[in-house]
Amino acid sequence: MSIIIGRGKNSRRAYGIDEIALVPGACTLDPSLADTSYSIGNIKREIPIIASAMDGVVDVRMAVLLSGLGSLGVLNLEGIQTRYEDTGPILDQIASVGKSEFVGLMQALYLEPVKPELVELRIKEIKEQGGIAAVSLTPLGAAKYGQLVAQAGADIIFIQATVVSTNHLSPDGVNSLDLAQFCQEMPIPVVLGNCVTYEVSLELMKAGAAAILVGIGPGAACTSRGVLGVGIPQATAVADCAAARDDFHRQTGEYVPIIADGGIVTGGDICKCIACGADAVMIGSPIARANEAPGKGYHWGMATPSPVLPRGTRINVGTTGSIRDILLGPAKLDDGTHNLLGALKTSMGTLGAQNIKQMQQVEVVIAPSLLTEGKVYQKAQQLGMGK
Amino acid sequence: MSIIIGRGKNSRRAYGIDEIALVPGACTLDPSLADTSYSIGNIKREIPIIASAMDGVVDVRMAVLLSGLGSLGVLNLEGIQTRYEDTGPILDQIASVGKSEFVGLMQALYLEPVKPELVELRIKEIKEQGGIAAVSLTPLGAAKYGQLVAQAGADIIFIQATVVSTNHLSPDGVNSLDLAQFCQEMPIPVVLGNCVTYEVSLELMKAGAAAILVGIGPGAACTSRGVLGVGIPQATAVADCAAARDDFHRQTGEYVPIIADGGIVTGGDICKCIACGADAVMIGSPIARANEAPGKGYHWGMATPSPVLPRGTRINVGTTGSIRDILLGPAKLDDGTHNLLGALKTSMGTLGAQNIKQMQQVEVVIAPSLLTEGKVYQKAQQLGMGK
Amino acid sequence: MSIIIGRGKNSRRAYGIDEIALVPGACTLDPSLADTSYSIGNIKREIPIIASAMDGVVDVRMAVLLSGLGSLGVLNLEGIQTRYEDTGPILDQIASVGKSEFVGLMQALYLEPVKPELVELRIKEIKEQGGIAAVSLTPLGAAKYGQLVAQAGADIIFIQATVVSTNHLSPDGVNSLDLAQFCQEMPIPVVLGNCVTYEVSLELMKAGAAAILVGIGPGAACTSRGVLGVGIPQATAVADCAAARDDFHRQTGEYVPIIADGGIVTGGDICKCIACGADAVMIGSPIARANEAPGKGYHWGMATPSPVLPRGTRINVGTTGSIRDILLGPAKLDDGTHNLLGALKTSMGTLGAQNIKQMQQVEVVIAPSLLTEGKVYQKAQQLGMGK
Amino acid sequence: MSIIIGRGKNSRRAYGIDEIALVPGACTLDPSLADTSYSIGNIKREIPIIASAMDGVVDVRMAVLLSGLGSLGVLNLEGIQTRYEDTGPILDQIASVGKSEFVGLMQALYLEPVKPELVELRIKEIKEQGGIAAVSLTPLGAAKYGQLVAQAGADIIFIQATVVSTNHLSPDGVNSLDLAQFCQEMPIPVVLGNCVTYEVSLELMKAGAAAILVGIGPGAACTSRGVLGVGIPQATAVADCAAARDDFHRQTGEYVPIIADGGIVTGGDICKCIACGADAVMIGSPIARANEAPGKGYHWGMATPSPVLPRGTRINVGTTGSIRDILLGPAKLDDGTHNLLGALKTSMGTLGAQNIKQMQQVEVVIAPSLLTEGKVYQKAQQLGMGK
Repeated sequence: MSIIIGRGKNSRRAYGIDEIALVPGACTLDPSLADTSYSIGNIKREIPIIASAMDGVVDVRMAVLLSGLGSLGVLNLEGIQTRYEDTGPILDQIASVGKSEFVGLMQALYLEPVKPELVELRIKEIKEQGGIAAVSLTPLGAAKYGQLVAQAGADIIFIQATVVSTNHLSPDGVNSLDLAQFCQEMPIPVVLGNCVTYEVSLELMKAGAAAILVGIGPGAACTSRGVLGVGIPQATAVADCAAARDDFHRQTGEYVPIIADGGIVTGGDICKCIACGADAVMIGSPIARANEAPGKGYHWGMATPSPVLPRGTRINVGTTGSIRDILLGPAKLDDGTHNLLGALKTSMGTLGAQNIKQMQQVEVVIAPSLLTEGKVYQKAQQLGMGK
Repeated sequence: MSIIIGRGKNSRRAYGIDEIALVPGACTLDPSLADTSYSIGNIKREIPIIASAMDGVVDVRMAVLLSGLGSLGVLNLEGIQTRYEDTGPILDQIASVGKSEFVGLMQALYLEPVKPELVELRIKEIKEQGGIAAVSLTPLGAAKYGQLVAQAGADIIFIQATVVSTNHLSPDGVNSLDLAQFCQEMPIPVVLGNCVTYEVSLELMKAGAAAILVGIGPGAACTSRGVLGVGIPQATAVADCAAARDDFHRQTGEYVPIIADGGIVTGGDICKCIACGADAVMIGSPIARANEAPGKGYHWGMATPSPVLPRGTRINVGTTGSIRDILLGPAKLDDGTHNLLGALKTSMGTLGAQNIKQMQQVEVVIAPSLLTEGKVYQKAQQLGMGK
Repeated sequence: MSIIIGRGKNSRRAYGIDEIALVPGACTLDPSLADTSYSIGNIKREIPIIASAMDGVVDVRMAVLLSGLGSLGVLNLEGIQTRYEDTGPILDQIASVGKSEFVGLMQALYLEPVKPELVELRIKEIKEQGGIAAVSLTPLGAAKYGQLVAQAGADIIFIQATVVSTNHLSPDGVNSLDLAQFCQEMPIPVVLGNCVTYEVSLELMKAGAAAILVGIGPGAACTSRGVLGVGIPQATAVADCAAARDDFHRQTGEYVPIIADGGIVTGGDICKCIACGADAVMIGSPIARANEAPGKGYHWGMATPSPVLPRGTRINVGTTGSIRDILLGPAKLDDGTHNLLGALKTSMGTLGAQNIKQMQQVEVVIAPSLLTEGKVYQKAQQLGMGK
Repeated sequence: MSIIIGRGKNSRRAYGIDEIALVPGACTLDPSLADTSYSIGNIKREIPIIASAMDGVVDVRMAVLLSGLGSLGVLNLEGIQTRYEDTGPILDQIASVGKSEFVGLMQALYLEPVKPELVELRIKEIKEQGGIAAVSLTPLGAAKYGQLVAQAGADIIFIQATVVSTNHLSPDGVNSLDLAQFCQEMPIPVVLGNCVTYEVSLELMKAGAAAILVGIGPGAACTSRGVLGVGIPQATAVADCAAARDDFHRQTGEYVPIIADGGIVTGGDICKCIACGADAVMIGSPIARANEAPGKGYHWGMATPSPVLPRGTRINVGTTGSIRDILLGPAKLDDGTHNLLGALKTSMGTLGAQNIKQMQQVEVVIAPSLLTEGKVYQKAQQLGMGK
């Protein structure tokens, strides 16, 4: 339905996952019967939760741990892991610097160049310990290191930019990455993102994407919307891109999974993204809270080190338990951030969904959990702000 | 009216009780003339307010007190009352533990099994003191203790799960409760819940429910929406289920009352639930604030002790007066949490409703009491946050 | 446009004054050219702002002061002014009691009965000092003291209840006030309220009201919505009742002004109420902040002393200037609570409205000043809550 | 789409920039390829960001600095710069006075009259240092000093009032400025504002405006909405006035740029205003945070000194970097308030917009970043309000 912002400027309403809720239907299911598995290319995983390619979230150790648990962690190949051999002191610095010096420190740390030998080393470290080597590069990085990554034995590669398109205009003399050619040349699945619309998803699928990352602007450590004004609430973005997946599947027989990326904090958020059409989700801050996370209780966006336009805040998320507690439980917290898989299975049981495809079909209502006056009093009191 | 979340994902708007208000019509009424009575099966009560089957809300003493006042309290038969003979020290522990150890303590306390002899004992204690023995079991508990409960002399039984359906899929070898068969075999009224849709309400009525509990996700001590993404705002849920009640009544001549359960804090909330179609309400936190409540000023959700996925927070609600003050007044507070029956009668007088059926017909407007900038200043100042 | 809350429960959206804004048109006006006068019966006033009949807002002295400034203050004839001859110590008590003892104190103070001789005395005191004696009674009080009030020389009488109707059902043996008969018998203008709908406004006009008070539930010291669930956002209520006024005027030639009452805090609120159709506004808390106000910096609702169901909170509003500063300026504050008449005249100039009738026709947009994330940061910082 | 507020009072929904977001399309662009230039009359600027004519934002030095950077700063010719020769001590006083004495101080400072010789001097000072002399006057001031300003060598003049119209009614004997005549007589471009509607924009263009300032009520230091009830959310206002520009352009061949003024804080806000149709933006508080700003870390509205109805608050915005950091970067903050041009270029790259005209055409969605319960917890914790 078209909405008029002003004369000649039409728009439509987009919805965020905070604005929706899932409706139980006529059947229920024992959670143990819920099948949560999904596949990207030849890689099948039991847990449809992928850890973001962020320096504070995934290092070699976390990638290996996640692989073992049935999940997947993506290593950022243009972050501190490939700029510094010994990342321990670097991460200590990031965790101990004051809030006002943080941006400057990140900018300084990133002056150190990415080292091809560390790109290779990190992939091999993951493989040697039996992990799935899922790695990420920017389009520019992919042009440089794509071949090296494949040769080093990576299993899957994520090409990620804030916004990706198959039609990028560069200044004369600069070669931008041809995504279709890259996908064709790489011997491993290539995941592309991020995007938020039906049209771009379809273009990326035609270019050969093995999966699509969906989400611009909704994440906790992402300030794209504030800095650039750009973003689409996640429920609408996921539903639109899922429609592209289904149309592409009907036309070509190929099924390209949709991964919701950004703004996902609780088990309920995961359930709602899948109910809007996602096959899996990518999460950052919930994993950053694991005892084993490289961020040591801190989480920050990957646009932060930009020398000219840093975006993304460092947040003190704390550590709340092991990565196993967070993904598989048993939960030690009751706020929806522990046992994320258990939450998904319980939700699927409640909704009668036997697998991800059925979960994508459950009924959704618009049900904003907006703050009302009464609730502010309540919250304020709970937070100890009143008398 | 269908709302498009994204391509191929349609939805509709659901409303919460915070988003509505009641409109005075052409007549008014002296509050003393408002008849607030309702019946479930053969049990008629003057006060359409039922205390929730929660450990911090109803024990034997509270059940007896509520019966005497014209209300009803439901005893949870799978909580600490039937796991421990002497619950005093247990409740002291719950009230004195720190916030971060609470979930672990609850999980430990629930390792103690439910004891059939205590199930029997609690029912008999209520009966001996002249109370109405209203008790609650989960579907699994009902399969185990249903017969025992009926033999022990219970007057009415509530079968409650977060989400209940007549079509539950269990793993091989596990027998799930056949609700229709259970209702038929029990010699006492069986209340079923919770549900939120027209279709499931109708199924539960056909299965023989004596009343339906309506509400998933809206309660203060309930975090279903955060953890599972599941829930429906209460105004819409109640109106939909009330429509099922009216259709079932037209078709069969049987009147199955609708009980709104969850998220109800003030007298105004009770009035609005009834105006949306409820015959009665079930409340937890307002009763937990009674001096006589077993929770000693604390209130917590019944999903909290789950060994794998605890949900529901413990809230320090404090104690504000006797259960008589809270239900019948005179009110000693002016915030809508004392003299709930008086508030209902005054509201009915204001709206010209002579009984619950007329109250279900009053005009409702969408009137969100959302926070505006100005109000935040105001609130902040009242809370002493500003200078 | 009908909105479906749930099956069989239709509704419509009602709007509050916080949700609207006024749109400048093609003309502007020097504020000095704006005529803000209005009349009720034979009483014409230059300032369309009436001080509420509340104990903390209007006493004899304030009524006289307001009359002199071109405004009007209504004295509550069933409050402490007519229960106590010397109200000074009583008001001191109210101002000095702790928050938790406030309701109990008010209930105790109101055990003292209303004294007919004080009813008479207060009216005479106002008249002797040259003020307009505008007084208020409840319907029950009007039955008792109506004659006395007229004989004592009152100029105008307000009959106010939370909700008033011409069709009130009372228990056998209790006589409720016949509003039509009362209006006919009184030799002075009778203002009736409160109401919020077209239908009830029309009934009250037919009964002989000299003006209609519009507003249920929106006021700062009023908790009708929380306690009773009853209320209508003020923009919609005023527009609906103004339509009744215009229809009644077309049909009978009589013009019965609409007075918006409740929830009005700033000059902008006054402007918006008039733009929705009001002829004047009644305000409490802005006047309670005058140095001369009897509340000594406190403001409380008149439903508070109810022995069984107290509603309405005492708020510490502070004192910010003289009543002249507040009504006529010059403003010493920049938050819209000083120089209310100046704000109205400036707004009318901005909007090109030469008088109240033109102001009632200005264009209104729906423009919620809802809190966004960014603004919360901002506010929080302004309030000194952040670092 | 018409919305019914109440019987006979129709309205429409207007949108603010906080309620919208920009949608990436099928193309992207290297930010270096984005052309952000615009022109007013014969003045072409590379940066479509104009500093507001406010005492705490622009003085002679800032005007010169901004000119040199490719931007524009407007000097207020009726503020302290033309009332006091030595403004240093005055600005120190404003920065050091307590919050409660601020309004009184401003009123006192403005008792000093505007001095024609200082009007001349300030313009000459800017010109001598090679800056573009952009200056601002109220309509009354324009009648008095317009000729003088042109003779002193000003390059462009802004005639600004809260609300401006071509049809202003004044008391007898007072001559109001004839805008059309003024535009015709002035040898330099005349920018007119503020307005918010299609109709008034068109009238101002017909009167000869070189550009139109759009925005009433949305600014941080502006309280028009609270005090006067007047205002239009900026996205709708800009879109409507941009439609007038395009229609006027089609009819006359003249292109009159639209400048969005008020409520713009971050780079994202700038992007969204242009996407709604603006050619440039005018900003106050982001510039007030420059080390070089005359306000020394404070920002206040120009309606504040009004002797009778002060509006606009003084806000302690602090200083966060040089004016170069703020406009051109490199950013030292990650919250969207540094490197505003870089943010615009990056956003344009993300959206595939090669110039301002293309940026005005990008897709916009309604995507309110409203506060939800979950986010309040999060924010509260980040602000250190919780435990």
